[in-house]
Amino acid sequence: MAIEIERKFLVEELPVIELQNAVLEEIQQGYLIREADREVRIRRKGELFFLTEKKGAGLSREEHEISINEQMFDALWPLSKGMRLEKARSTFMLDGYQLELDVYHGELKPLMVLETEFTSEEEALAWSPPEFAGLEVTGDKRYKNAQLAKTGKPDNG
Amino acid sequence: MAIEIERKFLVEELPVIELQNAVLEEIQQGYLIREADREVRIRRKGELFFLTEKKGAGLSREEHEISINEQMFDALWPLSKGMRLEKARSTFMLDGYQLELDVYHGELKPLMVLETEFTSEEEALAWSPPEFAGLEVTGDKRYKNAQLAKTGKPDNG
Repeated sequence: MAIEIERKFLVEELPVIELQNAVLEEIQQGYLIREADREVRIRRKGELFFLTEKKGAGLSREEHEISINEQMFDALWPLSKGMRLEKARSTFMLDGYQLELDVYHGELKPLMVLETEFTSEEEALAWSPPEFAGLEVTGDKRYKNAQLAKTGKPDNG
Repeated sequence: MAIEIERKFLVEELPVIELQNAVLEEIQQGYLIREADREVRIRRKGELFFLTEKKGAGLSREEHEISINEQMFDALWPLSKGMRLEKARSTFMLDGYQLELDVYHGELKPLMVLETEFTSEEEALAWSPPEFAGLEVTGDKRYKNAQLAKTGKPDNG
């Protein structure tokens, strides 16, 4: 188990300079269980496959990720019907922090979300987001991936 | 993540008196991933379903269990073909410790294994097993459930 402490911001315009040194990965994910305080999802990231459980809500969430194989992913994928999303993730460093910029595909287009993880809530709250970060949506349930996968892009997104 | 610290013993004869107050559950489990230092299994325990990852070997193992639903269990079960086992688990208290006695079905019959979990390795090593506990097989790879599911009962079992 790991505690995931993160902040999340909408992005209106791609930060072209920052993305020059980013690592780009295509992510496909589907939700298998969505309970009030828990979700279980599967994810394909390139040729790697994961099953992840997240518990809790807001700034800190408990997360556990299990590496699975393609057979398991393929067996479970049909169960995520109607609760899927795809996005391109760019990962890059900025002022000592690792940032992830997700550009959503499909119906969620043109949604773009910036995420950063921290080791403590104090550190998270002290962090100043870069200029290209727009509206903060940390803890906003409408921007949880499980919610985006199910109901699509929020009206103001 | 939890650290699982346990000791394991063969049992030759059922401890009839101790079992009078035991809780009995039928367990069905199958292995999906078996790597040198990691395994992923699914388990049905009555009407509950779990996906569990275990890492490491010996007295202490890292374990994480995720509650899944019957649909996920059913989708994954075919992938465990050839790596399954069934057992009846009796859980009971003895001198302040919770003991689990597993009576294996099918090809593993008449194997019976007693397990107890501890909160530290010191406590585990200090514990005196009850009289009905036979040969200690803690850390014996042949008695790992994943191994039993794949290759059956060891010759001296």
